[in-house]
Amino acid sequence: MIEPVFPEGILTVDRSSDVPLSEQLYRCFREAVRGGLLTSGTRLPSTRRLASSLGVARNTVNAAYDLLLAEGIISVRAGAAPRIVDGLRLEQGKPANIRSRPAPVLSSRGARMAANLRGEGWAFRHGALQPGSPALDLFPYEEWARCLRRAARLERTADLQYQNYSGHPALKQQLVRHLATERGVQATAEQILVTSSMQASLSLLAQALADTGDNVWLEEPGYLGARTAFHAAGLNIAQLPTDGDGADVDQVQVSDPPPKIIYVTPSHHYPLGARMPLARRLALLEAASKAGAIILEDDYDSEFLFSGRPVAALYGLAEEGQVIYLGTFSKSLMPGLRIAYCVVPTDLAQPIGQLMRNMGCTANVQAQAALAHFMDSGGFQKHLKQIRQVYEERGNCLVAALRGRLGNRLLVEPPSGNVQVAVLFRGDLDDVAIALAMQERGFAVSPLSSTYLGTDRQAGLIIGFAGATQEQIDKGVEVLGNLLEGMDD
Amino acid sequence: MIEPVFPEGILTVDRSSDVPLSEQLYRCFREAVRGGLLTSGTRLPSTRRLASSLGVARNTVNAAYDLLLAEGIISVRAGAAPRIVDGLRLEQGKPANIRSRPAPVLSSRGARMAANLRGEGWAFRHGALQPGSPALDLFPYEEWARCLRRAARLERTADLQYQNYSGHPALKQQLVRHLATERGVQATAEQILVTSSMQASLSLLAQALADTGDNVWLEEPGYLGARTAFHAAGLNIAQLPTDGDGADVDQVQVSDPPPKIIYVTPSHHYPLGARMPLARRLALLEAASKAGAIILEDDYDSEFLFSGRPVAALYGLAEEGQVIYLGTFSKSLMPGLRIAYCVVPTDLAQPIGQLMRNMGCTANVQAQAALAHFMDSGGFQKHLKQIRQVYEERGNCLVAALRGRLGNRLLVEPPSGNVQVAVLFRGDLDDVAIALAMQERGFAVSPLSSTYLGTDRQAGLIIGFAGATQEQIDKGVEVLGNLLEGMDD
Repeated sequence: MIEPVFPEGILTVDRSSDVPLSEQLYRCFREAVRGGLLTSGTRLPSTRRLASSLGVARNTVNAAYDLLLAEGIISVRAGAAPRIVDGLRLEQGKPANIRSRPAPVLSSRGARMAANLRGEGWAFRHGALQPGSPALDLFPYEEWARCLRRAARLERTADLQYQNYSGHPALKQQLVRHLATERGVQATAEQILVTSSMQASLSLLAQALADTGDNVWLEEPGYLGARTAFHAAGLNIAQLPTDGDGADVDQVQVSDPPPKIIYVTPSHHYPLGARMPLARRLALLEAASKAGAIILEDDYDSEFLFSGRPVAALYGLAEEGQVIYLGTFSKSLMPGLRIAYCVVPTDLAQPIGQLMRNMGCTANVQAQAALAHFMDSGGFQKHLKQIRQVYEERGNCLVAALRGRLGNRLLVEPPSGNVQVAVLFRGDLDDVAIALAMQERGFAVSPLSSTYLGTDRQAGLIIGFAGATQEQIDKGVEVLGNLLEGMDD
Repeated sequence: MIEPVFPEGILTVDRSSDVPLSEQLYRCFREAVRGGLLTSGTRLPSTRRLASSLGVARNTVNAAYDLLLAEGIISVRAGAAPRIVDGLRLEQGKPANIRSRPAPVLSSRGARMAANLRGEGWAFRHGALQPGSPALDLFPYEEWARCLRRAARLERTADLQYQNYSGHPALKQQLVRHLATERGVQATAEQILVTSSMQASLSLLAQALADTGDNVWLEEPGYLGARTAFHAAGLNIAQLPTDGDGADVDQVQVSDPPPKIIYVTPSHHYPLGARMPLARRLALLEAASKAGAIILEDDYDSEFLFSGRPVAALYGLAEEGQVIYLGTFSKSLMPGLRIAYCVVPTDLAQPIGQLMRNMGCTANVQAQAALAHFMDSGGFQKHLKQIRQVYEERGNCLVAALRGRLGNRLLVEPPSGNVQVAVLFRGDLDDVAIALAMQERGFAVSPLSSTYLGTDRQAGLIIGFAGATQEQIDKGVEVLGNLLEGMDD
């Protein structure tokens, strides 16, 4: 048998690379084996000879050979040169059928979970006047940096390990106090779950509380994030009609089977802004009770209800177990924080906490500790007070500009809260086309019609104001005016 | 008609409470309406009179009345006292059937997703020698605090808003470099998704790539976190047998239909530690290709392979789209960081990124920015070098102690990597009972048998060493020795 000759040409090293030379050598060998250039039984050169011919240290070659040995590519016997081992299925290294294999695809479920319900040719972009965005210009960066630094230095406990998946104890304690004082929500720390976002809370709860094909009621129009979570969970979404008093269960089409989940925004209906009066709240609780449904109360903007104190949360009116309360720090602090929370029934706290752990959507521990300190020290309340005032000013400024320039073409009320406002077009305009045109011009407004599930849609725009400068408002209104006038031609 | 008299006794205020007095008053009214103590048509006292009788400021009463008005509980007409409105469905406020409603329950899916597969009466506790835990005593708290502070001060861009759900661009860029240099993984930034944990990556991918009832192959024994994610996703888990060379596709029982997903830990089989040689790797790729399955390569401990450089990742051997590479910072930095990542096929990067966004399991932005800086500045490499050495020392120390005290009762090899080691009992011992007894004594070791899906199980313990002090090791081995000897009696 003729022994195969070692093909020295396979070896090259690149001294400018970040990859260590030994690793480069090892990879050259491995690729040569895979590519069939180095075959079973081939003797490798001695480390001395190879080091010399490549101009590298002998230790470098030794390290490469160690890797080859560790990976089972070469074998070494005392007194003999290392050889490429037998039995490597080299002929199967890159069979033709691997090259031509079809591109990987999502499962049916994966495709459903990945659906972008903003759809209709409307691509979500970022820019000025973006709905949902808080005022990052008012964020107390220096103070927050100190809180984070403090948390990173002081937190050396088991909290940083694999535990407290459902939230840092100190943050839960602050939330208990905050919710009782500000929202009339009486909860224990055990009931509070801290998640990585409102979207995570909605996804978890949709899956935890309903099976594929179960019914859910969603306000019409309603929050796209909730619709996305329910769609991803395979739920059958039924419309919960709304009017100037928010959601009205008496207007629901007879639905069989009854809903497992009812999703509402009673403090400030998303996106139109209605506040739900007590009579509606009681009717909602009664309907949920009859249906055996659990209510998800999304209190997304309770911190920014401008006129006086906000009404207490629906949660406080309900019996234990009827309502799950959902909140977020995305709008009061920043979306990048990735901290939201929910208040779940005592009986469900343990299993939903375990579910959270199994799904892995938990929040950064140091950020939670920093937030707990920020709340405890009064910094959060101070920040809220400031942004509440500025948000109201900016909202009024936007509405004044819209009315001044476009009062004959649209309807808009001064916002009673939140970080965005819904504008209704007079007449039958294509709000998707208008939103797209605005986006192309750097204004990330959204079409109101996309928040409807049914075909009876109101055309308009959802326009963010919380983070807007006067210049952005003026420019945006001007651009919108030109667009609307251009459509007359 | 006799007008109802206002029941003054319903009103009490607590000056020591955090809740503003106006809010307290408002709640008293609301509760009284709900409880039937205040009925439709009742006239409220004048603000002057009520303020005087309660000893509060008149503005306090005004604010409470404003809230009642805003919530639609009272009506006001010019020149008349405010009254409780008509038509509140008070009789439905707390119907008897609400009180007796059944406790809320999880959906079937929710119960499956919340399953604790560590089960078998074995409760997960925290304590010394806990598997999976890194050495928090070596964590560079001060340097990390500076990185976080820097990120919190400097990051003022749109990255903090609703975008980059699949990860901070700077961190993705660092990961591209790190993976190419250290793991032979050639990927673009677009292919990298940053998630809130390895568990989140596994959950997302299980759902994205397979439908309920689809087959998945999981190493036997194998990682419980992966089994949890697959079980939660409703997959049918088949055993992928392992031996001293890791997973062996040739030993798989004929399975029909073929798997959609194959989960492996080729660099260091979890929990037994085998390194998969090249021949096995090629066979695995071929089997996956034939089955049309995608491989999840969990490279959970690649940073801690002690003896020389680790072998390159399986990812580098495969064709584009065959392997998804999974990594985490939980073991190299800390679990509380909540940052993990995966490298997905180019074709799937956009839809899986959208799925991630829809599920909300994204990581804190400032922590991502801090980590990018920590990596870029060389701090991460320095930290890795230090902990790699200390982990190896601690692992050897644990093994020496176990062999010295219990060499006749168990088998254990010096760890070739990772933060924990598997110990095999000689003879047929109940490792769950032993682990529980250890846990009761403050040592959070886990039973090896729980990592098996089938009934052919090896008894032993998984013992963490990375964070262990010499004293914990000595004490833990002593406690284990006493337990094992006690079982002889």
